[in-house]
Amino acid sequence: MASPSVLTPQAEDFPKWYQDVVAKAEMADNGPVRGTMVIRPYGYSIWERIQSEIDVRIKEAGAQNAYFPLFIPESYLSKEAEHVEGFSPELAVVTHAGGEQLAEPVVVRPTSETVIGEFMAKWVQSYRDLPLLLNQWANVVRWELRPRLFLRSSEFLWQEGHTAHASYEDAAAYAMKIHTEVYNDFLEKVLAVPTFLGIKPPSERFAGAINTMTCEGMMRDGKALQMATSHELGQNFARAFDVTYQSEAGQAEHCWTTSWGASTRLVGGLIMAHGDDNGLVVPPRLAPIQVVLIAVRDEDVVNAACESLAQELKAAGVRCVIDKGRGSFGRRLTDWEIKGVPLRIEVGPRDLAEGVVTAVRRDTGEKLTLSTESAAQAVASVLAGMHDEMFNGAVAFRDARTHSVNTLEEAIEASQGGFARLAWDKIGPEGEKTLKNEAITVRCLQRSDGSIPVSETESDLIAIVAKSY
Amino acid sequence: MASPSVLTPQAEDFPKWYQDVVAKAEMADNGPVRGTMVIRPYGYSIWERIQSEIDVRIKEAGAQNAYFPLFIPESYLSKEAEHVEGFSPELAVVTHAGGEQLAEPVVVRPTSETVIGEFMAKWVQSYRDLPLLLNQWANVVRWELRPRLFLRSSEFLWQEGHTAHASYEDAAAYAMKIHTEVYNDFLEKVLAVPTFLGIKPPSERFAGAINTMTCEGMMRDGKALQMATSHELGQNFARAFDVTYQSEAGQAEHCWTTSWGASTRLVGGLIMAHGDDNGLVVPPRLAPIQVVLIAVRDEDVVNAACESLAQELKAAGVRCVIDKGRGSFGRRLTDWEIKGVPLRIEVGPRDLAEGVVTAVRRDTGEKLTLSTESAAQAVASVLAGMHDEMFNGAVAFRDARTHSVNTLEEAIEASQGGFARLAWDKIGPEGEKTLKNEAITVRCLQRSDGSIPVSETESDLIAIVAKSY
Repeated sequence: MASPSVLTPQAEDFPKWYQDVVAKAEMADNGPVRGTMVIRPYGYSIWERIQSEIDVRIKEAGAQNAYFPLFIPESYLSKEAEHVEGFSPELAVVTHAGGEQLAEPVVVRPTSETVIGEFMAKWVQSYRDLPLLLNQWANVVRWELRPRLFLRSSEFLWQEGHTAHASYEDAAAYAMKIHTEVYNDFLEKVLAVPTFLGIKPPSERFAGAINTMTCEGMMRDGKALQMATSHELGQNFARAFDVTYQSEAGQAEHCWTTSWGASTRLVGGLIMAHGDDNGLVVPPRLAPIQVVLIAVRDEDVVNAACESLAQELKAAGVRCVIDKGRGSFGRRLTDWEIKGVPLRIEVGPRDLAEGVVTAVRRDTGEKLTLSTESAAQAVASVLAGMHDEMFNGAVAFRDARTHSVNTLEEAIEASQGGFARLAWDKIGPEGEKTLKNEAITVRCLQRSDGSIPVSETESDLIAIVAKSY
Repeated sequence: MASPSVLTPQAEDFPKWYQDVVAKAEMADNGPVRGTMVIRPYGYSIWERIQSEIDVRIKEAGAQNAYFPLFIPESYLSKEAEHVEGFSPELAVVTHAGGEQLAEPVVVRPTSETVIGEFMAKWVQSYRDLPLLLNQWANVVRWELRPRLFLRSSEFLWQEGHTAHASYEDAAAYAMKIHTEVYNDFLEKVLAVPTFLGIKPPSERFAGAINTMTCEGMMRDGKALQMATSHELGQNFARAFDVTYQSEAGQAEHCWTTSWGASTRLVGGLIMAHGDDNGLVVPPRLAPIQVVLIAVRDEDVVNAACESLAQELKAAGVRCVIDKGRGSFGRRLTDWEIKGVPLRIEVGPRDLAEGVVTAVRRDTGEKLTLSTESAAQAVASVLAGMHDEMFNGAVAFRDARTHSVNTLEEAIEASQGGFARLAWDKIGPEGEKTLKNEAITVRCLQRSDGSIPVSETESDLIAIVAKSY
């Protein structure tokens, strides 16, 4: 429906298409300070839906929300050697406050393992205090040289979970629970994005982790996006911040900690995993607006029919809005299409006279004529089916572009428009370098049956290899 | 129930009592950087309830959530003269980022009028784009020399609304709508805190506003707390950021803007408006935990009864938790009392044998024997009545400590443990100075019938005068 001039076609220039969608769907703008982002109301309403769906799963997994400070003493970062090395180049530093130079500069949090470690040390005394399961919704800052809205911004919004446990096994099991029951469940059941689940090779781990689990999704250009990660931090941060507990046997022991996060990057993932040349396509369970009722004309009978249908839809639990019949009809259709609202219903006087309205699916373009009598019921049923169709379509798209290969050369070729699956023992540190020269990385390691390995040293692992965001 | 040693009594040292409650109820800790705050899970769960109740009212008032950057170019602040003067002493400044010195330092937002003004200028073209009604939930930083948890912290959480309108009248009406239908409605109907509504005298206005409306609540020590404010910004920010629109007549006009905010300070208000010598008293509509089921002993029959009652309560829409029968019974009672959970239900084997449980109200201490058969229904009814009783009690407390006086001297005397009402024309700039020397301020101006004036120049206004936080 969108005329070719509205958006750059994906096939012509995918990054330009992405920029166009972000702008024309009124998702976000660049902020005045380099790399920062203004999230506009429509973009933010999508983020609110992501937050609410992830938050309910985090609480279901037993973690409690809390809030830790934005400012962290510079010295905290240095307490964990790998951590400071990983984050130093990206830090924003406050040197002046309250009209004076600060005695010790403070950094704006790039992530909160350090400050939360400090407080875990205060709050955890005995094995009875464990596990300690915390999460926070917050903004973090990592200075970006090549910012892109939602995908890489100097400030972004996220949740970061931080937990402390009495044993390696308990920590590993909890990180796995978050990885599968929070992140992957959300990605499959709400975002309708299938993922490859696995562990990162050591070169790609979080700074300070002993193991990083990742959910890797495929975008419409065949590149990978890391949608969420869960880290086992071993006892590294517990040692650095002296997070100890007295065991049942009365011994002082260091805790085992985890951290895990998902960010506004998921909005970028939504755009690139489902979008088409006409704009966003928002899966129905996520959509802040599931149905738009478009009044074809600004007439009493049409407005009354819209109001009445809207009430029925809301009563049926459907999130809907009315677009009153002002301005060009074609322009309004294009605008809603760019915003990716799952179903639009055109309400016009001629259709109404026949007791029907016309519904159009955003994902397939299919037109449905619905009796006004039973429209609400029909809409709920269409939306329910749409999720599975979108998810299955995304699986089919991904599988068609994922190739099992036997050599690095074949992996490089397959990574030009999709993913390659290659035995991990055919890569190694040298192979990773070769791939990196082609802007390709090992996205994750899986067992041959697709399950998640405990360590990269297991035998017969498969590497998922791709270009990525 | 709390032994005298747990909390300092209010009458002995109110500020110490406040600190004790914040610590013992596990609400918050001081952060490592001066003036920052760690909000612990119980404190944060109360903030989440505040957020959710305010957010639904903001959306009902037609505003949409968005998100603007944490970092603001230093030059933006200077564009509105009063604004920069008001906020300069409190700013935190980032001078280095990404390993380099920044060409222009950036400030960490103390509030977002300036950056939002910049974007309003981009988004508003015509009268058809108005009103533009935005809100954001965010952290802000104002360096505090004398920080106090929740009441004055260098970083705090809040919502800040920002709107643009075509006329003075429309802007003033919207600020008033937020003041009454969002803030005061929340304060009365959820927080159970009665307020004096009015306008600030010019000396106490927000930096850059032409009018500031405030909700002033009375704390248990008779001091005032400003619970939320709504500002009419006139055309000051619209001129500074060139926020113009084309009117229906085709003229370019500056918009009229408003801003309004409420913060984590409300958690401090909750503590001080309702707390007693045994700790917090959380009003039932706000309470994240409305009922705690306390298993007297860790026995199968008790645990089963708790589970079953918890399910009935949840089905009746009551937020409840079970405290399993481990650890000292007395200690557990004290802990829940300090946390201010509205109703505790003690579930013990002897009571159960008689088919009853014992409920204890936190606000009055009243004990109720409830039949297990109908306990859920009885609980819902007790909670429903408790709100009004708490609110009415707070009104009575406030009115008993609010005195109409005729002179500044009397106002100073009445302000030692409450509020004074004094004719505004008996104060004036000189009188404000006299009061300030006694750490007393004019909290707000009202008409004699309690309604909200348009301007401080109206005749026969009454000033509400008090010490404050």
